[in-house]
Amino acid sequence: MCQSDQTPNDAESPAPCADEAIDTHRYRIVVAYDGSQFHGWQKQEPPDNPPLRTVQGVLNMALMKLLRQPVNLVGASRTDAGVHALGQVAQFDAATSIPLERLQHAITSRLPTDIEVRHVEIAPPYFQAIGDAVSKQYRYRFHNIQERPLTLRHTVYHCDYPLNVEAMNDAAGRLIGEHDFAGFSAASHGRQTTVRTIHDCHVLRDGQQVHVVVAGSGFLYNMVRIIAGTLLDAGRGRCQPTRIDEILATADRRLAGPTLPPEGLCLEWIRYQ
Amino acid sequence: MCQSDQTPNDAESPAPCADEAIDTHRYRIVVAYDGSQFHGWQKQEPPDNPPLRTVQGVLNMALMKLLRQPVNLVGASRTDAGVHALGQVAQFDAATSIPLERLQHAITSRLPTDIEVRHVEIAPPYFQAIGDAVSKQYRYRFHNIQERPLTLRHTVYHCDYPLNVEAMNDAAGRLIGEHDFAGFSAASHGRQTTVRTIHDCHVLRDGQQVHVVVAGSGFLYNMVRIIAGTLLDAGRGRCQPTRIDEILATADRRLAGPTLPPEGLCLEWIRYQ
Repeated sequence: MCQSDQTPNDAESPAPCADEAIDTHRYRIVVAYDGSQFHGWQKQEPPDNPPLRTVQGVLNMALMKLLRQPVNLVGASRTDAGVHALGQVAQFDAATSIPLERLQHAITSRLPTDIEVRHVEIAPPYFQAIGDAVSKQYRYRFHNIQERPLTLRHTVYHCDYPLNVEAMNDAAGRLIGEHDFAGFSAASHGRQTTVRTIHDCHVLRDGQQVHVVVAGSGFLYNMVRIIAGTLLDAGRGRCQPTRIDEILATADRRLAGPTLPPEGLCLEWIRYQ
Repeated sequence: MCQSDQTPNDAESPAPCADEAIDTHRYRIVVAYDGSQFHGWQKQEPPDNPPLRTVQGVLNMALMKLLRQPVNLVGASRTDAGVHALGQVAQFDAATSIPLERLQHAITSRLPTDIEVRHVEIAPPYFQAIGDAVSKQYRYRFHNIQERPLTLRHTVYHCDYPLNVEAMNDAAGRLIGEHDFAGFSAASHGRQTTVRTIHDCHVLRDGQQVHVVVAGSGFLYNMVRIIAGTLLDAGRGRCQPTRIDEILATADRRLAGPTLPPEGLCLEWIRYQ
């Protein structure tokens, strides 16, 4: 759209806003957010009701207002309500005269304080945020002291009993590799195959917190929260680390731990080839 | 109150709930809270409207339900809406057969997740949470990197410009001692004297944050938030550290920095003789 109220710096220069002069590009952006006040990533527009506040919805609206054109934002991971992200990746196509180096700030300045664009680049036109991802890393945070987390309560899961990090790490290591993770998935996963590859899974103590870090090719619905719940059981001595082998062998969801609440979970990064 | 539906363990033992058998004690409790979702400490019951959600209101109600008697909770510091506390101190009088060592957990288990009782003890009957306090410490947190604080946004003030901690410390040190702090107070302080003693004031860098730590005999309304705003000005080079001396000498509020927002502020502890 031509901005007729724009004052050109140089009247002799070619018109900067002729439609045909601006190429359409596919943009790849990295997005961080506090998921507490969002109904997840995915746009939700229930019939006869106002749309729910989602990251995709808020970000898509900000992009359309900034770029003054329809935008179809596609995110790599459909994080659930309450789940946070440091490195969600999304794509959209747009034709804009805003210089690339100004886009990150221009978008973020139109966003509420619980969401931020951390990086913007022009991707190849065939880039697919979902399909081209080769690995993702999540972190689940336990608040592991008796005192309540209070100001941290939207970003951790509180367990005030002692955790055996060594046993948790023993269990975590057994998840690494290519396995059928059906036993670590909600029944409604809706995927054709439940085979995934975990590249890394380890547990560490960080001051008053214990973190489960897991990176893999992709994750089934609720998979990280069920893995965290099973490692928690191992850390409390409710099961042996070898329980992981049994779950992988039998694909029996009932052998795994509970699906932990979303607030402890954060999507840290997504890697592409 | 006698609990007539209670089943005594030993019918031969003296009645455990006779009114005259339970002494009234003055209790001193230490309270921690995330102030984000509270309209401050002080009970607020606007006429013709439902009471606002305050820390005192929520805690007083939990105490009355647990102890089944009227309770008049008095807090040492009337923290503002959005201000947090790790070590608020409060007093109340009650007669209860609940053992002292069980009270902390019994109260906290009746509280929402953004508030917690951290300590309970029986104080002398003449103990005054407000009048007997000899010093208090507050901390104001700056989030000092370009990225937004996101999950930390309710507990920090975001300033993305470089801060000169050395200059801030030079300014902070000039506040230590007994001074008239009228220049660091909101006009509506409502106190007879504006003379206070600051025992300690220093600034430190803690990773991505910069903290202003200030301890003193007492604080005027908004005093810590104005001190933090003035030290921020010194850290940005908007004023020299000697500006502190001018404000103390003239008591001129206009020479001091802005009143920073409440979310960066936390009441850390209150000491008694």
